Amino acid sequence: MSVTAAGGFVAAGTACGIKPAGRPDLALVAVDGGRPVPAAAVFTTNRAAAAPVQVSRRHLAATGGRAAAVIVNSGNANAATGPAGLAVAAGTCDRVAAGLGCRPEEVLVCSTGLIGIPLDPAPLAAGVPALVAALSAGGAARAATAILTTDTVAKEVVVRAGAFTVGGMAKGAAMLAPDMATMLAVLTTDAAAEPEALGDALRRAVAGSFNQLTVDGSTSTNDTVVVLASGVAGSPAGPDELAGALADACASLALQMAADAEGATKLVRVEVTGAASHAEAARAARAVAESQLVKCSLFGGDPYWGRVVSELGSAGVAFELDRVSVAYGGTVVCRQGAPAAHDAEAVAAHLARRQVAVTADLGLGPGRAAVTTADLTPGYIDENMRTS
Amino acid sequence: MSVTAAGGFVAAGTACGIKPAGRPDLALVAVDGGRPVPAAAVFTTNRAAAAPVQVSRRHLAATGGRAAAVIVNSGNANAATGPAGLAVAAGTCDRVAAGLGCRPEEVLVCSTGLIGIPLDPAPLAAGVPALVAALSAGGAARAATAILTTDTVAKEVVVRAGAFTVGGMAKGAAMLAPDMATMLAVLTTDAAAEPEALGDALRRAVAGSFNQLTVDGSTSTNDTVVVLASGVAGSPAGPDELAGALADACASLALQMAADAEGATKLVRVEVTGAASHAEAARAARAVAESQLVKCSLFGGDPYWGRVVSELGSAGVAFELDRVSVAYGGTVVCRQGAPAAHDAEAVAAHLARRQVAVTADLGLGPGRAAVTTADLTPGYIDENMRTS
Repeated sequence: MSVTAAGGFVAAGTACGIKPAGRPDLALVAVDGGRPVPAAAVFTTNRAAAAPVQVSRRHLAATGGRAAAVIVNSGNANAATGPAGLAVAAGTCDRVAAGLGCRPEEVLVCSTGLIGIPLDPAPLAAGVPALVAALSAGGAARAATAILTTDTVAKEVVVRAGAFTVGGMAKGAAMLAPDMATMLAVLTTDAAAEPEALGDALRRAVAGSFNQLTVDGSTSTNDTVVVLASGVAGSPAGPDELAGALADACASLALQMAADAEGATKLVRVEVTGAASHAEAARAARAVAESQLVKCSLFGGDPYWGRVVSELGSAGVAFELDRVSVAYGGTVVCRQGAPAAHDAEAVAAHLARRQVAVTADLGLGPGRAAVTTADLTPGYIDENMRTS
Repeated sequence: MSVTAAGGFVAAGTACGIKPAGRPDLALVAVDGGRPVPAAAVFTTNRAAAAPVQVSRRHLAATGGRAAAVIVNSGNANAATGPAGLAVAAGTCDRVAAGLGCRPEEVLVCSTGLIGIPLDPAPLAAGVPALVAALSAGGAARAATAILTTDTVAKEVVVRAGAFTVGGMAKGAAMLAPDMATMLAVLTTDAAAEPEALGDALRRAVAGSFNQLTVDGSTSTNDTVVVLASGVAGSPAGPDELAGALADACASLALQMAADAEGATKLVRVEVTGAASHAEAARAARAVAESQLVKCSLFGGDPYWGRVVSELGSAGVAFELDRVSVAYGGTVVCRQGAPAAHDAEAVAAHLARRQVAVTADLGLGPGRAAVTTADLTPGYIDENMRTS
């Protein structure tokens, strides 16, 4: 069910011909009946934002935070495609609006795939009417499949929170970094919420999930997280109840993305404590998590903590070598900036696991933060060395 | 000759037992006769600076910029080794000073290799006297070999500039990034120069060479570039003559390092023009050069310029998508932020070369900068996934 688990939503997915070989590449999530409801979104910070990001931003601003549908294509990012790309993104919204009987500004649009390739409007023109006709509460799984690119599995989530539900689907397997990733996520809820409160809750949820994920340090041109609130389940008990459910949903989707990172053999949690501030802890954790050398060591299951210390020392945060400690899976291997006697077999056993924890304590202050990443493997290179 | 090409210097290299299997691991460069001469150095900006960096900084400060020798070991970085590591670094200087008949503060020390492994002083105690006894003008090649770690070739340079000479040796193959790299370089000149002028010239030379090199974005704990000026060839014609020769020497060594980057199949020059400032151009060029995704494309010879545009857009510099152009080897593939008709065969032929040029024009201002990098390959992962 995922994106249609919350009351008031329908979805559909199809193959319209953007991808070769008839693979699914077009998804639609809509409010049942095509009426606009409160909506909010978080978009990429990349200044090379793709055409669909520009159009969706404009539409949300024009409606004051209301939307009736989200149309998503995969196989082409419609990024760096000039005025023609903007016309295709806007035209796609027009077609969806015509099908649903809403205004074009009430449709949001997302694309994911290759950058810099003109997006042919013809498959979309043919695909959208069929997709609108196929909308149903049972279409969530097909929608979740149609937004994937290099992902190996669909990412779906349902969170039941008392009287209301949050459902969602996402894609993302590389070019994953704060803020956010080559990732799209469409969330729905039947809770009632005003656009502003919905936006606040979404931003908090994204900050605690997708923005704590980094696979390769690259921030994509197309990242978008959207939430629509149908309101059919009424108001949540308190203002934090919806925020909590959204956070849970985003956290689940983020973890599903990290676990499906291109070529990854390990899911790695890097936690930094004892930093001068939370912001410095986050910066230090990212420096470790994005280090090619650390990620190679993690792939090899090699307990080479020297690279962790080196990245901490060059992360641009307050740092005193003789206060630093590093642990793998809780076993301290470096204390006061120097080698610590430890159980090497315990460390080796931990590093051989699929889920690995690297913890560094800077010994300076109360700042703490964690990020999730993956190892760097030949599979990642193989996946990314050729796009065609 | 390299490091002994300039008049007044002797060198030696040996295997003292830090590395296994009798591989060369200890080098000494000294002023003939052991007298102190003007010296300058540039050290890593990493706050986890290794013990030898801490000791060499202290020695240079104590002498006001004079040194008689530089002792370098490979196979162990003596970094994150606590007070014991500091004692080993200082003790090594003591032994060299005893052998040469100079003061310990007149000896600089460098180490390169693994971080966080205690450095056993015993091999150094035995090796230093033998090394001092072996010092000769013919020892440069053995010294250049003894400082290598994962390098596949020795890096040496000789620059003749009128009446004086600059010679040098360096090592570095990964963990290469501004500022500077896992790199050591020892330079010598027979030009006469005061420590302050020598330091200025060295900093300019480093800024234009080693600091424009990035292999993996990691800044090591041990980076050191040292220059000693024996003065036996007298004063240069003008203040810029020595700076120019030092810059040439550093540029050559930096290029030799990039060409020997771990696992690399391509030497890549990324140039950004049209930025709002030179600093923003440098930041943007580094973002492209350090992108795992761009480096994977370069390994595959794939003309996927969308990744270049995406990195430029997220580099944190002034950026307007519709002003950006990108070229490979001079062939423009993206113009005004959108695909440009181009000779695809010319691009493919250029990307198949060992030396590749990526140029991006931001179309905003006069800022320009270039960095040199390498592609990301399975060989890099293979080299770095296990340290033992």
